[in-house]
Amino acid sequence: MKKIINDPSTVVGESLRGLAAAHADILKVRTEPAVVYRADAPVPDKVAVISGGGSGHEPMHGGFVGLGMLDAACPGAVFTSPTPDQVQAAIEHVHGGAGVLLIVKNYTGDVLNFETAAEFAEMSDVAVRTVVIDDDVAVKDSLYTAGRRGVGGTVLLEKILGGAAEGGYRLDELEALARRVISSVRSMGVALTACTVPHVGEPSFVLGDDEIEIGIGIHGEPGRRRVPHMPADQLVRALLEPILDDLPFGSGDRVVLFTNSMGGTPLVELYLAHGIAERLLEERGIVVERRLVGPYVTSLEMQGMSLTVLKVDDEMLRWWDAPVRTAALRWGA
Amino acid sequence: MKKIINDPSTVVGESLRGLAAAHADILKVRTEPAVVYRADAPVPDKVAVISGGGSGHEPMHGGFVGLGMLDAACPGAVFTSPTPDQVQAAIEHVHGGAGVLLIVKNYTGDVLNFETAAEFAEMSDVAVRTVVIDDDVAVKDSLYTAGRRGVGGTVLLEKILGGAAEGGYRLDELEALARRVISSVRSMGVALTACTVPHVGEPSFVLGDDEIEIGIGIHGEPGRRRVPHMPADQLVRALLEPILDDLPFGSGDRVVLFTNSMGGTPLVELYLAHGIAERLLEERGIVVERRLVGPYVTSLEMQGMSLTVLKVDDEMLRWWDAPVRTAALRWGA
Repeated sequence: MKKIINDPSTVVGESLRGLAAAHADILKVRTEPAVVYRADAPVPDKVAVISGGGSGHEPMHGGFVGLGMLDAACPGAVFTSPTPDQVQAAIEHVHGGAGVLLIVKNYTGDVLNFETAAEFAEMSDVAVRTVVIDDDVAVKDSLYTAGRRGVGGTVLLEKILGGAAEGGYRLDELEALARRVISSVRSMGVALTACTVPHVGEPSFVLGDDEIEIGIGIHGEPGRRRVPHMPADQLVRALLEPILDDLPFGSGDRVVLFTNSMGGTPLVELYLAHGIAERLLEERGIVVERRLVGPYVTSLEMQGMSLTVLKVDDEMLRWWDAPVRTAALRWGA
Repeated sequence: MKKIINDPSTVVGESLRGLAAAHADILKVRTEPAVVYRADAPVPDKVAVISGGGSGHEPMHGGFVGLGMLDAACPGAVFTSPTPDQVQAAIEHVHGGAGVLLIVKNYTGDVLNFETAAEFAEMSDVAVRTVVIDDDVAVKDSLYTAGRRGVGGTVLLEKILGGAAEGGYRLDELEALARRVISSVRSMGVALTACTVPHVGEPSFVLGDDEIEIGIGIHGEPGRRRVPHMPADQLVRALLEPILDDLPFGSGDRVVLFTNSMGGTPLVELYLAHGIAERLLEERGIVVERRLVGPYVTSLEMQGMSLTVLKVDDEMLRWWDAPVRTAALRWGA
């Protein structure tokens, strides 16, 4: 295992120090327990939006902390849920009197630990609502999940919710918007190679020299099927068709298209894949209103990609377009 | 070779189509010859800033086209210089009457082809100046270079020059500023793994399971030495010390620090390395005024990183901070 680290047990803490040093104008980091939070938190009378999950998916979630997106993120160990005390500390630190919305990806440990923290917060009279995102169409249940997994749709949800919270939405309105986004977004991914968790020291799984895994999870959990590698035209279709058939998306629908790298896939390949996805959507009469292309929900150095499609309306687009100023996403601010 | 492509011979063209589809509000792409240019080009009475080079280093340079940075980028084949007719087409397409500044990385083919295009442009009475960046301290001459190679410093140069051009600098002033930036910036990189050029189909070089190459070039050209892999503290020091000793940088200097991923290195590792570099600079009394962290000058899927340090003054910082709106760098706009 060749990684730019000192010790597998200190990777996350040392990385957070670098994040804080790089973006002191946007975010701060507290340790024991680890929380990344907005430099100007708490923002009075704004609903605080908090998320988190295992590390190793950077820039998610710490890279989305800042104006117009998250108030705080709770980074667990690599591919490990954050603890309830991390989430509690985040809530205490950033809530500004208007309540807290927790965005949780659907993994059993995450759901449990965020719920525990929410219960503690409510005992302190902080109003908390929790929404669980489960946008991955690949598998019904999986290694760490009852039901579908939360993957790339999380980025779109956090951007739209963060924008609306900054724009003055109250807790009820935010929760309703979150549920609409969650019901309108679908994703699927593929792995060309595995990744190696630092404290494990060897690849999470093994793929043959000409083998790929369609429907991979962001922790390398098994997908739908291992198949021989295929040309990009065919591969993008294999990801996109199950997404479109699931909601389903149809002619005339307006969407945000998110083409995500799993980390190790070069941008030259990712843009190539994005161009194919645009063409396939156009052929179906689906209108791409906005796009996001890049490595935003990664699995360490895994080569591969995912596609996420969100059916949008004017309300969602308004908050997608709203100013955002984070380490990883920034526009209008 | 597992890549998300259809055919090695069409990778760059297909990828440019995806880039254009993703960022239609910022840039446009023309083909035969391939040029990426600002959607609003030509900008009247502004010096046009143009760069380019082999593909495979994305987001450089196409991802830096837009307001406050490049007017056009000329993408060659993967790891191959753009042709003179690409550069000529770019000049014709984006020059707005105030002349053209060409930013060229110091590789023999790039320098020759940009010079040829500059000569043709001057025959058409377009004022052209060329600056060559050679910031890599690793080796004196190399596989594709007489003198030092141009690497990560290119991003800082393009941002500062693009800002100043947008701010109204004339061609003489821009050239003078460019020469000051070039004389004040130094870089060095390391590879943990090799990358595979699509039309070659196998890795450019081979590193052992516990071996790294210090001083690697962005095309996998040989560096200073192959050594056993080492902890991040030691690795960052091995990159930073030759940089600091070269200019040299000393106590009280103000700098921009750029921690760059070669493509395949996860952000969790990159931020960890960035934190170490910040600490080492602080120990030497060097003041980090601004930072950039991410994969900006890549070598396809290569795992590894580079550090770039630029000694800055108020003029450079002013244009570093100026608004920029490109696919890869965006703030204030």
